[in-house]
Amino acid sequence: MTATRTAAATALAGLDELDDELNRLYRHLHAHPELSMQEHRTAELIEQHLASSGVPTFRCGGTGVVGVLENGPGPVVAFRADTDALPITEQTGLDHASTATGTLPDGTTTDVMHGCGHDTHVSSLLIAARLLARAREAWSGTAVLIFQPGEETAAGARAMVDDGLWDRAPRPEVVLGQHVGPGSAGEVHYRTGTAASMADSWEVTMFGRGGHGSQPQRCIDPIVQVAHTITRIQAVVAREVDPARSAVVTVGRISGGLKENIIPDSAVFTLNVRTFDERVRERVLASLRRIIAAEAEASGAPEPTITELSRFPRLINDEEATARTMAALAEHRGGSGVSAAEEPLMGSEDFGVLGEAIGVPSCFWFIGGTNPDVHAAARELAEDVPGNHSPLFAPDPGPTLPRMVEAAVVGMLAFLDS
Amino acid sequence: MTATRTAAATALAGLDELDDELNRLYRHLHAHPELSMQEHRTAELIEQHLASSGVPTFRCGGTGVVGVLENGPGPVVAFRADTDALPITEQTGLDHASTATGTLPDGTTTDVMHGCGHDTHVSSLLIAARLLARAREAWSGTAVLIFQPGEETAAGARAMVDDGLWDRAPRPEVVLGQHVGPGSAGEVHYRTGTAASMADSWEVTMFGRGGHGSQPQRCIDPIVQVAHTITRIQAVVAREVDPARSAVVTVGRISGGLKENIIPDSAVFTLNVRTFDERVRERVLASLRRIIAAEAEASGAPEPTITELSRFPRLINDEEATARTMAALAEHRGGSGVSAAEEPLMGSEDFGVLGEAIGVPSCFWFIGGTNPDVHAAARELAEDVPGNHSPLFAPDPGPTLPRMVEAAVVGMLAFLDS
Amino acid sequence: MTATRTAAATALAGLDELDDELNRLYRHLHAHPELSMQEHRTAELIEQHLASSGVPTFRCGGTGVVGVLENGPGPVVAFRADTDALPITEQTGLDHASTATGTLPDGTTTDVMHGCGHDTHVSSLLIAARLLARAREAWSGTAVLIFQPGEETAAGARAMVDDGLWDRAPRPEVVLGQHVGPGSAGEVHYRTGTAASMADSWEVTMFGRGGHGSQPQRCIDPIVQVAHTITRIQAVVAREVDPARSAVVTVGRISGGLKENIIPDSAVFTLNVRTFDERVRERVLASLRRIIAAEAEASGAPEPTITELSRFPRLINDEEATARTMAALAEHRGGSGVSAAEEPLMGSEDFGVLGEAIGVPSCFWFIGGTNPDVHAAARELAEDVPGNHSPLFAPDPGPTLPRMVEAAVVGMLAFLDS
Amino acid sequence: MTATRTAAATALAGLDELDDELNRLYRHLHAHPELSMQEHRTAELIEQHLASSGVPTFRCGGTGVVGVLENGPGPVVAFRADTDALPITEQTGLDHASTATGTLPDGTTTDVMHGCGHDTHVSSLLIAARLLARAREAWSGTAVLIFQPGEETAAGARAMVDDGLWDRAPRPEVVLGQHVGPGSAGEVHYRTGTAASMADSWEVTMFGRGGHGSQPQRCIDPIVQVAHTITRIQAVVAREVDPARSAVVTVGRISGGLKENIIPDSAVFTLNVRTFDERVRERVLASLRRIIAAEAEASGAPEPTITELSRFPRLINDEEATARTMAALAEHRGGSGVSAAEEPLMGSEDFGVLGEAIGVPSCFWFIGGTNPDVHAAARELAEDVPGNHSPLFAPDPGPTLPRMVEAAVVGMLAFLDS
Repeated sequence: MTATRTAAATALAGLDELDDELNRLYRHLHAHPELSMQEHRTAELIEQHLASSGVPTFRCGGTGVVGVLENGPGPVVAFRADTDALPITEQTGLDHASTATGTLPDGTTTDVMHGCGHDTHVSSLLIAARLLARAREAWSGTAVLIFQPGEETAAGARAMVDDGLWDRAPRPEVVLGQHVGPGSAGEVHYRTGTAASMADSWEVTMFGRGGHGSQPQRCIDPIVQVAHTITRIQAVVAREVDPARSAVVTVGRISGGLKENIIPDSAVFTLNVRTFDERVRERVLASLRRIIAAEAEASGAPEPTITELSRFPRLINDEEATARTMAALAEHRGGSGVSAAEEPLMGSEDFGVLGEAIGVPSCFWFIGGTNPDVHAAARELAEDVPGNHSPLFAPDPGPTLPRMVEAAVVGMLAFLDS
Repeated sequence: MTATRTAAATALAGLDELDDELNRLYRHLHAHPELSMQEHRTAELIEQHLASSGVPTFRCGGTGVVGVLENGPGPVVAFRADTDALPITEQTGLDHASTATGTLPDGTTTDVMHGCGHDTHVSSLLIAARLLARAREAWSGTAVLIFQPGEETAAGARAMVDDGLWDRAPRPEVVLGQHVGPGSAGEVHYRTGTAASMADSWEVTMFGRGGHGSQPQRCIDPIVQVAHTITRIQAVVAREVDPARSAVVTVGRISGGLKENIIPDSAVFTLNVRTFDERVRERVLASLRRIIAAEAEASGAPEPTITELSRFPRLINDEEATARTMAALAEHRGGSGVSAAEEPLMGSEDFGVLGEAIGVPSCFWFIGGTNPDVHAAARELAEDVPGNHSPLFAPDPGPTLPRMVEAAVVGMLAFLDS
Repeated sequence: MTATRTAAATALAGLDELDDELNRLYRHLHAHPELSMQEHRTAELIEQHLASSGVPTFRCGGTGVVGVLENGPGPVVAFRADTDALPITEQTGLDHASTATGTLPDGTTTDVMHGCGHDTHVSSLLIAARLLARAREAWSGTAVLIFQPGEETAAGARAMVDDGLWDRAPRPEVVLGQHVGPGSAGEVHYRTGTAASMADSWEVTMFGRGGHGSQPQRCIDPIVQVAHTITRIQAVVAREVDPARSAVVTVGRISGGLKENIIPDSAVFTLNVRTFDERVRERVLASLRRIIAAEAEASGAPEPTITELSRFPRLINDEEATARTMAALAEHRGGSGVSAAEEPLMGSEDFGVLGEAIGVPSCFWFIGGTNPDVHAAARELAEDVPGNHSPLFAPDPGPTLPRMVEAAVVGMLAFLDS
Repeated sequence: MTATRTAAATALAGLDELDDELNRLYRHLHAHPELSMQEHRTAELIEQHLASSGVPTFRCGGTGVVGVLENGPGPVVAFRADTDALPITEQTGLDHASTATGTLPDGTTTDVMHGCGHDTHVSSLLIAARLLARAREAWSGTAVLIFQPGEETAAGARAMVDDGLWDRAPRPEVVLGQHVGPGSAGEVHYRTGTAASMADSWEVTMFGRGGHGSQPQRCIDPIVQVAHTITRIQAVVAREVDPARSAVVTVGRISGGLKENIIPDSAVFTLNVRTFDERVRERVLASLRRIIAAEAEASGAPEPTITELSRFPRLINDEEATARTMAALAEHRGGSGVSAAEEPLMGSEDFGVLGEAIGVPSCFWFIGGTNPDVHAAARELAEDVPGNHSPLFAPDPGPTLPRMVEAAVVGMLAFLDS
């Protein structure tokens, strides 16, 4: 048994006792989600909980919170949990389902839901911190606990770095993080190298000439223009991307017009483009620009405007750091429950920004949130389980949360002295 | 010179003196537009002005106002002005441009604009009423002045009738009305028989299965479904309607999704269908239903829902009433400025509901609002002048308003004793 | 009874006796259709039949035949029948259905069918000529019988004029013609002024970059480009044409690629555009050019080529000539069976080229080909009866052909001396 | 040096001397391509050449030829070259470019081109056979040389098996084959396991109701229906396939209508679907069926017909046989010029049918045909070099053909005794 395994066994011995609290935290967070960069109450809850664990904190990047758990000399390791939720109307029917609302940047009021599982990230890291704080005898060094806002908008990691994260927290030798998703509960999947896709998001405004719905010939209809453009865009992935490469182009939002008998002056849609290969990314973005411009011309309309909403860089898992982390996890689990994924995740992450800012390696993994008793073959059933960002997304907290705590504790101990 | 002409000359002698007031009324109304069935301040202004003219009023259909100007024995004639404005962001740059906002039935806040010229309808009928009230010696009978709310939603005429309009006001022998639009200022265009189109409006909700924008294969994308449906719908007018018949299908609003990286569960669009022929109408509506259902099937999606938003009946101008009104107008104008239109208006109106409810004939005409000095050939230029429902729609009040007052006065006097 | 009516009664007295021959002629022509400008056997049959009626002929414009029936001094009148058939596979199931084939200009072999009723035009004019030739005592003057090839391609009238038609035949004072179509059998419909639409036909070639069907990313797919363009084009009629005006844009042919697993270098489609108003025509053609160019740009493809296939001018019926012809027809029919059509025909004709070439007035009418016993209300049923160019198009010869002979005879006699 | 390497050196010593003949064979075949299952003259040439090498042959599967080169006791190995060409108009501008024509199954005449490089397959295998026949002292066993027709239609391998291939030829212990394509000349790329995609081809006929191009309202337009369907189909790959999986849907042919002013009764397109995963294949095919049916419904049209044109199974390279073949090739080449491909080829092959019919392992590899002097970095330039099935596809015979001969000889010797 390695020292890491022994230290982990010591720290995690207290987990059963905290199980109720872990679940209460999760349920509370789930019931009170907040939109990106507006995680005010979430930040306060994190500060209070870390304080009650004896971990000093500082605010960083607006609603970001950093806890610094010092425990004598030794290595510094950072672990990040993201804290924001999404503009989704929850449909899970859970007791603790969200009824919260929030305001989007454009002023729209929306329902809000922890539809990406960040509530499990926050609650499990808070309990992991408490366990490490209680088991100081088992390890030495410093754990930097980063509760990052605004992951969904690719704004939060950058905001924390820009707000002096690494001037104010000790410089770690690795930054770790995890993400819940479909898959057998607690099962860890990882990738070395490219672990998650690049993502570019645009807002496209197409212009026309408004007027009475009865006189289309005196107008230029921007809604028909948008419909043709969205239709046309499907051919980019279908016909312009090497079938052996991956790309996704999603139109996540359309909006235009207020009244059925008025042709509006403009209409808007947003695009989200995911790729792994820079050449594929450039081609897809160029083709989208070409089609958007040409469809406006086909309508005899003014040139559309394209505004970049966010740009997620590629997430690269360091080979050595990943090997070390996964070895520790596998050892702790007796050799099972950790496997390399065949393909990188189409999802995107701004996690990598944290380590890259100071040239420190990253390791980020995915952890299943489906009850293994229910889903014997999670891989097979993956298509039927509601995924992240679905209004039905509901990880099974019973089996999942303790294993997320465990993964966080073991991951950090793999780099701390023990 | 006929008696009508003499009476009209007497009544209209006071028009010059009221010109400033007419313009002030118009500018005030233009600057303070209110959405359909929410015309509260407009109704109060109408009540006050009619009262100051000595015309008693009653409320009817919520924000509707009826003035009953009794002047001895004789015929009863009704004249209707509609009072509501539209959810449009005004772009005219006028001094008196609207900065008002309002709340749509779905809770959305919107800018509001008198983008259909109802401000000219209200202001000119208020001044016409004052002129008739001042010139009681020139005529006898009763003028029923109907200020109707909610024309744009086809709700107001029905609401007034249902609220006992004809139980509370004397039964007229004709109902008159006018509408401003592009065309040489003050020029009257009329149609006998079908004068304006039928209009059917639907809200269509298409369903999918939401999820993460990176995993389209686990979702059913309702935005792509809507884009294909709107694209497909263009073929109805292009390929299914007899080219010798008229039909317009406008998608006036699209809406779906909140965030660029979430595939939503549903998306919505509204349809506005204009036709003159019941067989064409039935075919177009049936084809739209067929396409909407089939495009959902093509997506493997649940059946869409179709909600009727409004249904404007066809507007029929009575042959005899129209001839009588137009003859009086032409006589008053010395034979010019009144002409039969070649085709009925694609616009729609709920005006016809008022007379039809009690089997009384209707006469409704269109009056140009463009400065004839500027636009020598309004017909030729019609395509370049911003039309009704455009954010740039701006009738030229100088030449237009007095002729609208004149047309209202002469029209009513054509049926009153004089 | 006018002189025309008397002369017509005399000439048409022989019609019953020729009824069998009329039907045989029609059935023979129907069974042996020939494509445009290839009407060789049809021309020979016409020459033989006219010769057997004692009418001298000359060839003109390749497969065109002109018969000149001189009968003393007096006016000259011309009557035109078009002789060509269409590349359609007949599906009428008639005994005399066509099994003929022909070769299109591009070398394609096709089935051929008299799908536009020109067989009725030829057979009825041949019998009309025989009747006039037999009843020389009843009239004087000259009848010029023009059997014109290539109407369907807008090539034949021009070819005859260019081949010296009016140098070789006496100059008439009017050119007459008729066309069979849906409608109560024998019922004549006419229009003064614009009688049939303008028609512009284009062949559009869109280019891509060919390659293996498994490597779309290395190709530019011209078939997807064509599909999007045809889809996009639907919005021209639906959104860019004043609903009160008529326009039709038909894609009558698509062609591209030879093998399912090869992406071809190019694909082709043809467009047929029908309009009545020159401004509408120009806008539609400009919009089509704009869309075709923009859709190629949207594909990142080379500029498409557009080749004009044919251009049918508008057909104008002279007011006086039409009134005279229709008065004679109505008189002959006892006042019924002749009516003005509400709208001009969307179909197009090169008939007008003949008279315009020498500044002589034209009169062209439509004659129903549906059995009135079967179709009591042909107008109502019009949508259900297979129309011209349908593979099921089948005028009912029993009642139709004699009335076409009658109309031709009466029409000519209206201008000849009698 | 292994025995295989020694034997190969012996056999290939004669290659330089045959270089002219190799090139002449290739040029002749390139100039005289024949369509699938019509390779009559190609078969005769193969028979003559094998005979001149002293290899007895038999016909099998119509235009297939099998040469059986017996050389004493020992293992039996089969090598297959496919012989057919494609309906492409060659645009290479080569001296030996094809001017041949052929007749497709539907009777269409087409230009024919060796656009997939089968001419290099045939010529190199003929020379390989001659070299082996001349160097009998260097090896023992039996080489079965299979010249297979109709690879492009997935018909030929099946036809040979059904015609008793394995009853008439000795049963081999492995079946080998190679395919030329873009890539550095002579460079061998291979895959263990899935080596090429499954491919399903359909012909889809969509029905409408034909008629005159001026009366779309009386018709159901099948061309608009096809355009919408092709447009809609793009969303299958774009939205329904897991981005981590590969799928291609190509519409390789469209056809409908004969004349621009006739709306036809039907229109046709072909689909070619490539996948590697049976679940992906089933989903894509099901989605295509769903969309095709729904788009017909959207048109109010009869149900389309779908005819299967061909079905290529997945090509599986046996692990052991592939390792053995590639080891021999690498050894012969001194360790370079042989590499494992990252992904299987999207192209499809019926090669696998030959071995699977008798449960014998297969090994199939790809060999580059680009001049390495010209294209230093063939991988980088791959997108710019005309690929297989392009009218510009032109492997560089100088460096390519000898290395294809070499690969065939070495591959066979890897299994023969030496």
